[in-house]
Amino acid sequence: MDIIKVSARSVPKLVAGAIAAVIREGKPVEVQAVGAGAANQAIKAIAISRVYMTEAAVELICKPAFTTVVIDEVEKTAISMVVEALA
Amino acid sequence: MDIIKVSARSVPKLVAGAIAAVIREGKPVEVQAVGAGAANQAIKAIAISRVYMTEAAVELICKPAFTTVVIDEVEKTAISMVVEALA
Repeated sequence: MDIIKVSARSVPKLVAGAIAAVIREGKPVEVQAVGAGAANQAIKAIAISRVYMTEAAVELICKPAFTTVVIDEVEKTAISMVVEALA
Repeated sequence: MDIIKVSARSVPKLVAGAIAAVIREGKPVEVQAVGAGAANQAIKAIAISRVYMTEAAVELICKPAFTTVVIDEVEKTAISMVVEALA
């Protein structure tokens, strides 16, 4: 699955565009965020991508879960949100 | 729809229990958060509630959107996440 990594400095509108681009290819996408600031930008991005896709008559849903990522050889807990079109 | 308001000091496991309780009644629930810290706790709570409900063979999905809430007579943008069982 395509993975989009979001940081606290990511721009939600740009991330939303990236999410929508993958969804338009008919694929789900995993959005990953480490830390509160990143998680906040990620959820904002998903909210915006839902607006984008509503315009295309596609309803997006997300499935949040915990995952582990390795950053600079250190394991960190990340929030993983799989975003997909509601069947 | 039932609304659960999450703050930056909310305990995700407790919020997850509250989400699961509403879902078990067969209803969707709206989780609201204002600010990055609150949004982070909310998304963690939803991830945990998904684990709880997986044990009951129910898959939870969430639908993030922006909403406006009034706190101390001031309008604030909140993240609203409707959580429901996947039909």
